[in-house]
Amino acid sequence: MNNDLVEQIMGEVMRKMDSEAASAPAQPAAPEAKSCAAKLPAACGLTEFVGTAIGHTIGLVIANVDSSLHEQMKIDKKYRSIGILGARTGAGPHIFAADEAVKATNSEIILIELPRDTEGGAGHGSLILFGAEDVSDARRAVEVALSEVERTFGDVYGNSAGHLEFQYTARASTALNKAFGAPLGQSFGITVGGPAAIGVLLADTAAKAATVDAVGYSSPGNGGTSFSNEVIFTFSGDSGAVRQAIVAAREVGKQVLKAMEPDEDLPSSTTPYI
Amino acid sequence: MNNDLVEQIMGEVMRKMDSEAASAPAQPAAPEAKSCAAKLPAACGLTEFVGTAIGHTIGLVIANVDSSLHEQMKIDKKYRSIGILGARTGAGPHIFAADEAVKATNSEIILIELPRDTEGGAGHGSLILFGAEDVSDARRAVEVALSEVERTFGDVYGNSAGHLEFQYTARASTALNKAFGAPLGQSFGITVGGPAAIGVLLADTAAKAATVDAVGYSSPGNGGTSFSNEVIFTFSGDSGAVRQAIVAAREVGKQVLKAMEPDEDLPSSTTPYI
Amino acid sequence: MNNDLVEQIMGEVMRKMDSEAASAPAQPAAPEAKSCAAKLPAACGLTEFVGTAIGHTIGLVIANVDSSLHEQMKIDKKYRSIGILGARTGAGPHIFAADEAVKATNSEIILIELPRDTEGGAGHGSLILFGAEDVSDARRAVEVALSEVERTFGDVYGNSAGHLEFQYTARASTALNKAFGAPLGQSFGITVGGPAAIGVLLADTAAKAATVDAVGYSSPGNGGTSFSNEVIFTFSGDSGAVRQAIVAAREVGKQVLKAMEPDEDLPSSTTPYI
Repeated sequence: MNNDLVEQIMGEVMRKMDSEAASAPAQPAAPEAKSCAAKLPAACGLTEFVGTAIGHTIGLVIANVDSSLHEQMKIDKKYRSIGILGARTGAGPHIFAADEAVKATNSEIILIELPRDTEGGAGHGSLILFGAEDVSDARRAVEVALSEVERTFGDVYGNSAGHLEFQYTARASTALNKAFGAPLGQSFGITVGGPAAIGVLLADTAAKAATVDAVGYSSPGNGGTSFSNEVIFTFSGDSGAVRQAIVAAREVGKQVLKAMEPDEDLPSSTTPYI
Repeated sequence: MNNDLVEQIMGEVMRKMDSEAASAPAQPAAPEAKSCAAKLPAACGLTEFVGTAIGHTIGLVIANVDSSLHEQMKIDKKYRSIGILGARTGAGPHIFAADEAVKATNSEIILIELPRDTEGGAGHGSLILFGAEDVSDARRAVEVALSEVERTFGDVYGNSAGHLEFQYTARASTALNKAFGAPLGQSFGITVGGPAAIGVLLADTAAKAATVDAVGYSSPGNGGTSFSNEVIFTFSGDSGAVRQAIVAAREVGKQVLKAMEPDEDLPSSTTPYI
Repeated sequence: MNNDLVEQIMGEVMRKMDSEAASAPAQPAAPEAKSCAAKLPAACGLTEFVGTAIGHTIGLVIANVDSSLHEQMKIDKKYRSIGILGARTGAGPHIFAADEAVKATNSEIILIELPRDTEGGAGHGSLILFGAEDVSDARRAVEVALSEVERTFGDVYGNSAGHLEFQYTARASTALNKAFGAPLGQSFGITVGGPAAIGVLLADTAAKAATVDAVGYSSPGNGGTSFSNEVIFTFSGDSGAVRQAIVAAREVGKQVLKAMEPDEDLPSSTTPYI
């Protein structure tokens, strides 16, 4: 009887411990995967609030930017309204999402900045401003971007050693042009690896796997990564070639990052799309 | 009886688990609130040690800086003694505390630097050097600053998504002038939000809420934040207007940051003072 | 009997909780000490993979860098092969390890970059590239560096408030020259403290403790630390004097960092070597 009792109690204790573990914050070292706040469009009564998304992403809008602030921000006077897309974790996913947003709406990209962040991870957060003459256009741009972020996190993979990121578009627009110098209207892809050593290998693998045109290479010290522990390689070319380069780099990257933490999984942050 | 026993044991287990949780380190994502080391003026026998404060803050003093180091640091020769105020978490609280310290003592500000830090959070740490001809003055400046930090953390609020910070002084002195270009002797305030998207909204809210003069706007990429995921807005003006701008921004900021993590509290790091 | 039962169950529960605690990720705030992945030379089938080491360090090699990438990376054409040493945590340990690697192999240092990292800590990660004409030389350089990292982490000490680092070599080679301007062939040492306030005190202590020549002083804002919350002091001189300076600074640093978290240990990351 005592043993039954012990089992009964252990069962209760373990259930309690499991439920506490389940509600605990995810590990800081797998930043891409942890901040999965669902979109909560109605969680905030402010008219400026648009929504949230994975990666501690927030979308806001200002209908009529204060004129003294407008000046301090050095924004073109024609944009009375701005949409704001910001995140603690992820720059690539947000820039590719913003690219879809400017294609789909009557808005333009004012500014793309990459803070050093990821909540203890190796990479970036982001701050992206959309400009519009009408607030409804700015709001719509943020809404589109927030909904795209779920997809663009699909090829972001992380464990406690670092992260991998792959992005692809069949047709680059002005967000990708502004952030990475992507040729407008062309297929465009990026490989990102952190720690930066892995990013170097991803770049070489992508460059060799298909006939692509190298557009840029950002390393921690060359000005392109805000001192984040990443290497970003960007390239354009034939649509099939860009995808082929990414798929090859993704295969190699997973093996190497997995080798740094063999006992951990290396999950997609959402669902792979490339 | 078995049930009584089960309850008795569960009670003990839960007490044990709670006490372990209480002694566990705070969540890394609420950086402003976690590093609450009490001041321990007697914890270290070194004459250079002054004390510690919230935010993993430390105060040190060097009576007579080595001449070769003096040269490397590019410090004015007249400051034989330096006071050192540094922290892992928080720049605003320390700069406003240092401002009180230079008002209250015979010391000057040599240097204010904002490392990218907050122990995985979105913001800064700080390194502030006071210069004095006499070591007792340098020590006194650090002591005053350490004691002020408890107050200046009062309007710092954090959850796992980010943080908000508000600071106000009725009369800006040389620390605020050096760090932010505050007009000497005037009322001066700042709003800070991380992720940076929130900081943009705080800036706009403050600018609209009262007649204040915008002094500066720092974003992750414009050189003012050491690539931290923050936007800092600074302004001066009539004392009542500066406070009014801050109170309005604080109200909006809490709603937005709360919307990113609806299930978490958003406590003051100490006690609000504005 | 009930009490026996309670004790029996509490014993089981505590064993279970302890084993879970033991397998939990190390605290993010003691970055230098946590990432103790053993070297796993056979964990990855890729020919590019060389191995891993403490600090989330990875070693890779590329036999024949893609020509378009070669151009983007701005690498001298004569280096067909590159060795890659990267880490999430630690720059000093890796630069001193790389210095031994270039002494021991037919390779050269192409690039040393210090990302802002340490997984939520106050310091750096690293990205170091070795160049060679032959891939076997590049691989050998990475192997030597990976094996040296275990030693060079010996005088890295961390707790949740920050970290201390001390490095020494009897004869500086090209890696130390490139990274820190160390005079070739001379004894050379560094002191590092984070938060930066502690690093200032270490610098002063080292400079006063022995007759050494100051080589450099890097602070969060002067361009030398990628905005990390560290001060790095570098010096050369007579071998005994360099060691003496380090030993004195180490003694002081441990007392001060310990004073910030009196209840925590301040262990060496591996085994002290100075």
